[in-house]
Amino acid sequence: MAGRRIDSMLVTHLTHVRYLSGFSGSNGALLLSKDLSARIATDGRYTTQIAEEVPDIECLKARDVGVELLREVTGPRRVGFEASHVTVAQLDRLTDACGEDVQLVPVTGLIEDLRLIKDQLELERLTGVAELASQALREVLDAGELAVGRTERQVAADLEYRMRMLGAERVSFDTIVASGPNSAKPHHGAGNRVIEAGDLVTIDFGAHDRGFNSDCTRTYIMGHTTEFTEEIYNLVHRAQAAGVEAATPGTPLREVDAACRDIIAAAGYGDYFVHSTGHGIGLDVHEPPMASLTGSGGLREGMTLTIEPGVYIPGRGGVRIEDTLIITAGAPEVITRLPKDLQVI
Amino acid sequence: MAGRRIDSMLVTHLTHVRYLSGFSGSNGALLLSKDLSARIATDGRYTTQIAEEVPDIECLKARDVGVELLREVTGPRRVGFEASHVTVAQLDRLTDACGEDVQLVPVTGLIEDLRLIKDQLELERLTGVAELASQALREVLDAGELAVGRTERQVAADLEYRMRMLGAERVSFDTIVASGPNSAKPHHGAGNRVIEAGDLVTIDFGAHDRGFNSDCTRTYIMGHTTEFTEEIYNLVHRAQAAGVEAATPGTPLREVDAACRDIIAAAGYGDYFVHSTGHGIGLDVHEPPMASLTGSGGLREGMTLTIEPGVYIPGRGGVRIEDTLIITAGAPEVITRLPKDLQVI
Repeated sequence: MAGRRIDSMLVTHLTHVRYLSGFSGSNGALLLSKDLSARIATDGRYTTQIAEEVPDIECLKARDVGVELLREVTGPRRVGFEASHVTVAQLDRLTDACGEDVQLVPVTGLIEDLRLIKDQLELERLTGVAELASQALREVLDAGELAVGRTERQVAADLEYRMRMLGAERVSFDTIVASGPNSAKPHHGAGNRVIEAGDLVTIDFGAHDRGFNSDCTRTYIMGHTTEFTEEIYNLVHRAQAAGVEAATPGTPLREVDAACRDIIAAAGYGDYFVHSTGHGIGLDVHEPPMASLTGSGGLREGMTLTIEPGVYIPGRGGVRIEDTLIITAGAPEVITRLPKDLQVI
Repeated sequence: MAGRRIDSMLVTHLTHVRYLSGFSGSNGALLLSKDLSARIATDGRYTTQIAEEVPDIECLKARDVGVELLREVTGPRRVGFEASHVTVAQLDRLTDACGEDVQLVPVTGLIEDLRLIKDQLELERLTGVAELASQALREVLDAGELAVGRTERQVAADLEYRMRMLGAERVSFDTIVASGPNSAKPHHGAGNRVIEAGDLVTIDFGAHDRGFNSDCTRTYIMGHTTEFTEEIYNLVHRAQAAGVEAATPGTPLREVDAACRDIIAAAGYGDYFVHSTGHGIGLDVHEPPMASLTGSGGLREGMTLTIEPGVYIPGRGGVRIEDTLIITAGAPEVITRLPKDLQVI
């Protein structure tokens, strides 16, 4: 907040409204004041829900929630707003709603910083939803639903169904089932391609439960290995293990990235690792910290981090292996507990 | 654009990048110039994908896509940006990237207005995905998956699985299966409540395919009717039919809303219809036009609109019935083709 003191903070980013209040609806805002008073606003669709989720904060019923909360502020008052989430057009409307002595002040990173270190309840939720998702993939494998002759989409639908039946509210992101040449596209979805013997199949999936997300990737080899698939699998496997090992408190995020990247580069595949090593996860699937070539700062206890190196050879195939870690005083806790040795299915 | 002429337009809202270029990745921006030249940008994860999806536009490889596209602009030049989508913090970064004679100009509604009237391909996609979703619900009903003794979540998972297997890329929004007292919450999700005889069960669901969304709601009565459930079902049914009938070209959006609302109010339930009558649907699930108490303008041929009145009695239950329409020269085309008569299951 760079020395610019504020009297109140208007929170409009829904993830932050939920983080601070527990309200999970799709329209809401929160006004927090330095005298520790708080008001929340939502519209008529959520009257019943907000009374259950946020019994202790007085609720204003409004459609344009930020604007209506600001209208009730009397000056002189400096009110912070979330500059990384409020749009330019929205700021115009908020400004119009301010009384004469009410001044809006851009604030960035305030709540993001609070979210960096997870508390015990958050870690339990994250561990729980990661285990739910892992269990779903185990069931898919046990049931033989990942098989030559099935489409990517069918495998994704089965995995999603199992996550839902195990209690997930939704998927955290579009499930990736990328087979054969599609596995060379890091963000392929799940299409109509029929899985063939010899394919690499990369499955990147996550479940969402009560606000929290999971994220895990495994790559399998269908039917039989080839020199190519075995080589890049073992390389990525080695790089991923090095990344996990590097993820301890105090380690600069660039070093975590380098731990994976250096191994892949040394094997001559540096140009084919086209993304960052990892990201934090919590209420968002992708949130700070970021382990990348340009990442700043270091790891701290209570952070989460994915380690997900990959190698992608256009037209031929790719491998990605991803775990989610909780950073602890010692070795990190891997909460995506699925085998990582090369598996031929 | 209010008379403020621009030389180029920077498009950063991903839905608009997709609308204009066909690129479906999660990071991208487009710079269009009045000399009809265009550049697109995305990062290394999408190199292969963008070459397939947008073969004709030169691609800049960058992480901070809007910033890097702007860096290459030489002045004097007025560049529009999407003020309803660019955040205040993002505008600071974009401004820093501009050369001396390059000026950023806020633009709102430009691409939104283009999207209001759907072309033939868009209408075909919307019709197709609505039929896919309808077929999934038919299958759920035929298979007896909506039944007393099952949980809301199980029914939602079955419906989502069937949409996926029929070809949906994902759900358009969290599936609602709201049973008994939960049906009084318009935006209840799908929880662990076990469906009981006598319940109202509201199912609000949509499928997503190649950018386009569907949206449909039906309410069923489990086991047997009561005076209460029959009364509010028939009331909402009547109101919904009136809304559909009113949805013709030239009709003011407020009148479409009033067509539903007046019937509900006349029956004494006006206070329990707590949301708007409907919204457009396309690349977004909710997009203009908006049929509401405060809606402005009127319907035009080629627009889409949902008609979804509801009555919600806290603690007791609620009913919502929703169709998606295409506005045509005559009576609207209802593309969510599922029965609406009172059904006891």
